[in-house]
Amino acid sequence: MADAGVTLKGRIVMQQCLSARLQVKPPTDEEEGEYVEVNRGAVIYICFLKGADISVVEKMAKTTLTVRLSETGNGKFISILDLPGDVLVVPQATLGGKAKGKMMQYHSNIAKDEGLELYNAYIEQCRKMLNEHSKWKEAGCTLKHGTYGNRQVLRIDTNGPFSHYFEF
Amino acid sequence: MADAGVTLKGRIVMQQCLSARLQVKPPTDEEEGEYVEVNRGAVIYICFLKGADISVVEKMAKTTLTVRLSETGNGKFISILDLPGDVLVVPQATLGGKAKGKMMQYHSNIAKDEGLELYNAYIEQCRKMLNEHSKWKEAGCTLKHGTYGNRQVLRIDTNGPFSHYFEF
Repeated sequence: MADAGVTLKGRIVMQQCLSARLQVKPPTDEEEGEYVEVNRGAVIYICFLKGADISVVEKMAKTTLTVRLSETGNGKFISILDLPGDVLVVPQATLGGKAKGKMMQYHSNIAKDEGLELYNAYIEQCRKMLNEHSKWKEAGCTLKHGTYGNRQVLRIDTNGPFSHYFEF
Repeated sequence: MADAGVTLKGRIVMQQCLSARLQVKPPTDEEEGEYVEVNRGAVIYICFLKGADISVVEKMAKTTLTVRLSETGNGKFISILDLPGDVLVVPQATLGGKAKGKMMQYHSNIAKDEGLELYNAYIEQCRKMLNEHSKWKEAGCTLKHGTYGNRQVLRIDTNGPFSHYFEF
């Protein structure tokens, strides 16, 4: 949890997956929907809050890619970079919600245009870090991500989601 | 987020699902694994932290079952009780983790025996609330839950997980 008095800039939930599939373009009357797929790796649900700026993006990318949450065959935990594994980033503004009675309020969420900018920066920072890590790159792993602002139609298959929560 | 200075007693992540399947007994050499399945409804990942007691269980059950996170056909959001929808509870101690450098620490997690007791109490409280809600009960909805302490081998299919985070 962030220190008392420090304003939160973002929230992330990470889950481990065996495979996952995410819609990136909804179907229309004329066309089928488009999807991205990943194999074993991490699903990263990300949300930016008011006051978030580019300085938090690097920290978010570093934490999510280097924290040791991925189980190896011998029961050790290593980073998604070292696993190496696929990465699926899911924009998830709902993580910014706060319950007020039975209703959720999203007053702490960042404005959509700013959120999109930070989301794109986060993806680019992840892409950079992943591609600079030879073990990850040489293994042919992939980074996929959802379309910001869309409904995130997601299917995930896990050997234990091993969910973790991060504040920034 | 809990008020500054107040110790957290629990964390919950809620996702909406079209269907989900959870292993409740792992396979052995002699037997196949056992699974529970739910149809459209809510997946509730729950974690108890040190200092949690029975008083927080009722609040957790009330919040998760009455908060309006389930989308109706006309785009309104209602509770899982009123949807009405299935409920799958997944014990998820990893939500109590805190990153220290690249390692996760779980120092805030409640002791396993106490956690099991509160987990069982939460399930019972949910069962009570759900069964007392005639709309839910008459619709033939179901409450399923994972085995505390096991690996939560989970598959989830969503029309948007619409993930929400709650602190208690």
